[in-house]
Amino acid sequence: MKHPGRAEALRELSGVVGPEHLLDDSSVRAAERATFATTQKIAAIVRPADRDEVRACLLVVAKHRLAVYPISGGRNWGLGSRVPTSDGAILLDLGRMNRITFFDEEMAHVTVEPGVTFGQLYDFLKERGSRLFANTTGASPRASVVGNAIERGDGTGPYGDRWAHVCALEVVLSTGEVVNTGFGRFDDTPLGPLHRWGVGPALDGLFSQSNLGVVTRMTVWLQPLPRSLHAVRFRLRDPDKLAGLVDACRTLRLDGTIRSAVGIWNDYRVLSTDGQYPWDEARGTTPLSREVVEKLSKRWGGATWFGLTAIYAASAEQGRAHRLHMEKTLSPRVDDLSILERTGEPTSGHELFTEHEPALDFLQGIPHEGSLRSVYWRKRAPPPASELDPDRDGCGVLWVCPAVPLRGADVVRAVKLCEEKMPAHGFEPLIAMIAQTERVMYLVPLIIYDRDVDGEDGRALACHDALLEALRAFGYLPYRLGVQSMRSLAPPRDEHGAVLRRIKAALDPSGVLSPGRYEFPTGRGD
Amino acid sequence: MKHPGRAEALRELSGVVGPEHLLDDSSVRAAERATFATTQKIAAIVRPADRDEVRACLLVVAKHRLAVYPISGGRNWGLGSRVPTSDGAILLDLGRMNRITFFDEEMAHVTVEPGVTFGQLYDFLKERGSRLFANTTGASPRASVVGNAIERGDGTGPYGDRWAHVCALEVVLSTGEVVNTGFGRFDDTPLGPLHRWGVGPALDGLFSQSNLGVVTRMTVWLQPLPRSLHAVRFRLRDPDKLAGLVDACRTLRLDGTIRSAVGIWNDYRVLSTDGQYPWDEARGTTPLSREVVEKLSKRWGGATWFGLTAIYAASAEQGRAHRLHMEKTLSPRVDDLSILERTGEPTSGHELFTEHEPALDFLQGIPHEGSLRSVYWRKRAPPPASELDPDRDGCGVLWVCPAVPLRGADVVRAVKLCEEKMPAHGFEPLIAMIAQTERVMYLVPLIIYDRDVDGEDGRALACHDALLEALRAFGYLPYRLGVQSMRSLAPPRDEHGAVLRRIKAALDPSGVLSPGRYEFPTGRGD
Repeated sequence: MKHPGRAEALRELSGVVGPEHLLDDSSVRAAERATFATTQKIAAIVRPADRDEVRACLLVVAKHRLAVYPISGGRNWGLGSRVPTSDGAILLDLGRMNRITFFDEEMAHVTVEPGVTFGQLYDFLKERGSRLFANTTGASPRASVVGNAIERGDGTGPYGDRWAHVCALEVVLSTGEVVNTGFGRFDDTPLGPLHRWGVGPALDGLFSQSNLGVVTRMTVWLQPLPRSLHAVRFRLRDPDKLAGLVDACRTLRLDGTIRSAVGIWNDYRVLSTDGQYPWDEARGTTPLSREVVEKLSKRWGGATWFGLTAIYAASAEQGRAHRLHMEKTLSPRVDDLSILERTGEPTSGHELFTEHEPALDFLQGIPHEGSLRSVYWRKRAPPPASELDPDRDGCGVLWVCPAVPLRGADVVRAVKLCEEKMPAHGFEPLIAMIAQTERVMYLVPLIIYDRDVDGEDGRALACHDALLEALRAFGYLPYRLGVQSMRSLAPPRDEHGAVLRRIKAALDPSGVLSPGRYEFPTGRGD
Repeated sequence: MKHPGRAEALRELSGVVGPEHLLDDSSVRAAERATFATTQKIAAIVRPADRDEVRACLLVVAKHRLAVYPISGGRNWGLGSRVPTSDGAILLDLGRMNRITFFDEEMAHVTVEPGVTFGQLYDFLKERGSRLFANTTGASPRASVVGNAIERGDGTGPYGDRWAHVCALEVVLSTGEVVNTGFGRFDDTPLGPLHRWGVGPALDGLFSQSNLGVVTRMTVWLQPLPRSLHAVRFRLRDPDKLAGLVDACRTLRLDGTIRSAVGIWNDYRVLSTDGQYPWDEARGTTPLSREVVEKLSKRWGGATWFGLTAIYAASAEQGRAHRLHMEKTLSPRVDDLSILERTGEPTSGHELFTEHEPALDFLQGIPHEGSLRSVYWRKRAPPPASELDPDRDGCGVLWVCPAVPLRGADVVRAVKLCEEKMPAHGFEPLIAMIAQTERVMYLVPLIIYDRDVDGEDGRALACHDALLEALRAFGYLPYRLGVQSMRSLAPPRDEHGAVLRRIKAALDPSGVLSPGRYEFPTGRGD
């Protein structure tokens, strides 16, 4: 654990950021705590104020060959929170870099630093009376926009595939070099925030889900608020209808009727956001049995699956035409279809639906903590009224993130695997899924538990690993990985591993940046 | 010019592909001929049959440190055709690799090798009675789908941003290593052709507009044929309306009404596709004066700008609602708006519009040579009836490819630069522009001339360089580069150049692959 140059490095880092921004106290211990069991220790937390301080910090750690682990918001809940992939790393907390450095209403984009949160961006747009909105995450208003985008997180609305709608990354390498992607590398051009690829090889992809550089700035494309917004909700009573529904979603996405994600939740998942674990009805036992779920779900007429999507349109006529087509396609495949419509000019309130129901807020890019409360599902005490902190509060959350073909048979098979494996390990199959693109369903089976219950940490990890493996056997591979499972994938069938390693050596020659993060087995004896 | 190991290398290459696929004759001389003056010689043409032969060829050239220049279709007209960026290179012609290796109607994708042409892909889908279409290029049915996609060429329809709708690249490096992008690197998963990013750093971007690897396979996403297709055409008589029109296009793209490119051509460009240069009316002089253009354009009521876009919809109602909104927005900004509508099930004919008018074909993904004929504009003899070959026929074509913000003031300024510079150098301002994304207009000022006229080659290159420079001064940078202008950009304001060079060294350590291609000045004395 002890590294000879560490004390000297910390002195130098303190000189860079000022002693008040080099933390070596209880906040370090707090940062070592995720929503599942981890053992990695953090050497210190350093909080640079700007890009130049990031550069200087990286030069210090590279000189001393100390591992450094950048975080933007550190709210990577279920996948490791702020905990580094290697032991003894210095946490580079970019939270102070929270400036919105550029905004263009006409061309519909905004440039943000890594500390900018979804809540902050929403407030920024609302205060300016902007006619634009940024899609948001289901996680938390305090999550980082940059952090979520470079992790390729998902959102809603036409730009829900968040990573596909950002550009002009400013990246600092551990060599101290700065690289701007796309046209952003050139002086005196208006094209940087407008165009993704620029000219020549497109480097953006290298800095998503990677440990190759530190993203210190990014342009996020914004969408005009629709003049017609339909919130489309549906339910299935008969779970055997799921396959047909999934196929219909694909058809509607491919034909352009749905230009947004479709979220589908099972009854367990809905229960988990509707309150805490029903200890009384379950007579204190876990996991929650089907019988109890069926009793509780009578309040919704016994529905087993719940869907939400939206129609974003520029005019009431367009919205209604889409609605008509969607009703025609979905009606035979669902049991209840309920569509809420709002039309008008969202000038003052920056929103069309003013009910402030979590689902409707989400569709309009208004971040909220509604979904986050569900991580307190298994806790005996209620969640705090505000400032939810799953890491601090001992909420157990493990996220498995398989991508599954957006095809009924595949989705049903993957769901069945979750429904088998999770209860077998003592956990409810809390399943959400998101038709995020036209061809892929992101499945989100959540293992939620109480870290204060003896042995649960171990059982949850075992469940996670077994589920990942069962899904992998059918080729349903994860599209994101937790810090504990970076090496869980099979070796590739090609030389991807060796090539990625050479790219790593070219960009981070001292190898100090997030060692192990999105580094994979190569099958060559490594 | 003579390289000590070349004779030995050619023998080895002949052993790999068979002597009949190693060309060292008149076809080599033909391949040295582009649509403008070049001096690079080609050592030989080698035509591998499959990926393994590509690997073997690359290992041979790497061993002997001989430059190799891969082409897919070699129809990069206006930007260099098949001519390599360095002198003495071996041309790696991938045209024999023309298999369509996978097709999935349900999930709407097809996997192709680099030799597959737009025409071949269209025929393939049509023969199978597919309900899907691939967007096409304006260039030629004989252009390569892979070549165009990795050059980030443009198309029409919802997937017009072609590079954004491909995935699962199979790439061979000069080291002989094979890399598959996205989930394609894993065995036994259905996700490869369905998902772009995979897990971990996304490498696709590295292999577009680059010299880092040879793409030997690629998945192309297909779109369902719309059940309602509107061809929207408009004209401007008063050129001062252009700025307002461009802004309206941005609004309609951002709000989701237009999900396809908008093409806008000036009168010169339309004349050039409508026949050859009017030598009689111009009394033998060039460039064509405004007076003659205005006389000729009386046949269209004096319009100066001509637009084409389309509405793709899943139902007649959706199509009509979009049309209504578009008419409302465009009508005040254009002089004529004419909309053709087709609805129905395009089962048998694989097309909705059966007129086989080039513009309507283009919207439906039916490739044709209509636009290509225009490169014979300045020739004294008419173009051949089929098998157009601008390289062979001495057609002069130089393409300048600036990206311009999709904002009226910027587009008008860029157009004015073309209208000034091009006639000053003796060429008509043949201008097309394509609103390819929601924020960027691709301008396509074409310098078309007759290579058989003394001195024209030199004047055309001077015009090209002056125009590139004039546009660059306003930050309107090229989004593609010709083989002659790879080093025409200003050095970046960051360390992009040094970093890209290290990536090159990591992926192509012997430096044999397309030396100079999309390699940029770094401003560090290189």
